[in-house]
Amino acid sequence: MENDMSDFFELVQRRQSCRQFSDKPVEREKLVKILEAARLAPSGCNSQPWYFIVVESPDKVAEVAQTTMQLGLNEYIGQAKAIIVIVEEHAHLIPKVAKMVDSQVFAKNDLGAATLSLCLAAESLGLGTCIVGMFDRPKLRELLDISDDKPIHMVVAVGYAASDKVRNKQRKSLEEISRFV
Amino acid sequence: MENDMSDFFELVQRRQSCRQFSDKPVEREKLVKILEAARLAPSGCNSQPWYFIVVESPDKVAEVAQTTMQLGLNEYIGQAKAIIVIVEEHAHLIPKVAKMVDSQVFAKNDLGAATLSLCLAAESLGLGTCIVGMFDRPKLRELLDISDDKPIHMVVAVGYAASDKVRNKQRKSLEEISRFV
Repeated sequence: MENDMSDFFELVQRRQSCRQFSDKPVEREKLVKILEAARLAPSGCNSQPWYFIVVESPDKVAEVAQTTMQLGLNEYIGQAKAIIVIVEEHAHLIPKVAKMVDSQVFAKNDLGAATLSLCLAAESLGLGTCIVGMFDRPKLRELLDISDDKPIHMVVAVGYAASDKVRNKQRKSLEEISRFV
Repeated sequence: MENDMSDFFELVQRRQSCRQFSDKPVEREKLVKILEAARLAPSGCNSQPWYFIVVESPDKVAEVAQTTMQLGLNEYIGQAKAIIVIVEEHAHLIPKVAKMVDSQVFAKNDLGAATLSLCLAAESLGLGTCIVGMFDRPKLRELLDISDDKPIHMVVAVGYAASDKVRNKQRKSLEEISRFV
């Protein structure tokens, strides 16, 4: 049961926002595998409040990429070979819990976990990803026929990275973000 | 760069809510390693809106465990050897983004990602975890001296699992949670 940490830790180090994708297409089989990793993520009361729209047809990818390019921040999304749009679904909590809190109270945490599971799975298959939170939500909703009552959580661009280089991660130190008691 | 998926996918399969912990203490070194995996999680504008209070002294663990036992749901938390309390911090977004959205708009997603990174890291070190979202927040705030303006996100119980058995995961099918376009 005690496994070597190095593999997972190396994966965590390698996962980074990919901002330059190669022309190599992404295999459908790999997209299914990374969805599978998201599917198995934990969620509050096992409510699984998520839905994934995997955009892979080139015309549609181009249209969806357009919706992320406001702010002039995400031009590279146009190079992605697939885009996964993550939608928040109603969370059915167990009755004891549902009596005390709003149904969606854990949903964004759960979606964050599923999103990371997806990105780590992609990295483990040699695929780069970039999580995008800023995009034209009304336009994307219309493009993909997502009903108004479902928040669009995040968009994840997927493709083979143009470069193998792993950048140094800029993060606060452990001392800044934790204490032991 | 193209690694074998099996390791990560096996880790995802093995990670489960641990509801029975053994008496074996958890090494400080392992707690530091799992924090490190959380520290390297992605976040909106790299804002890292998180703080981790690692409770490891037995008296304090017992007191914190008590705050999770409302609802009669989490009695097993009393067996945990460490409890990590995850606190939401103010997120400093980049100016272009901060002009358009609330500072905390991505925080719960980011905390969800950090929480999963922590739990997967723990599993890779042979440690069981259980993410708990229902607890007596005012009491926990008082116990750990957490200021009123910082939401307490989740509590993660940590310890060696009493059993190696991996349960079957109950999840919706891929067909229920995704479509390709």
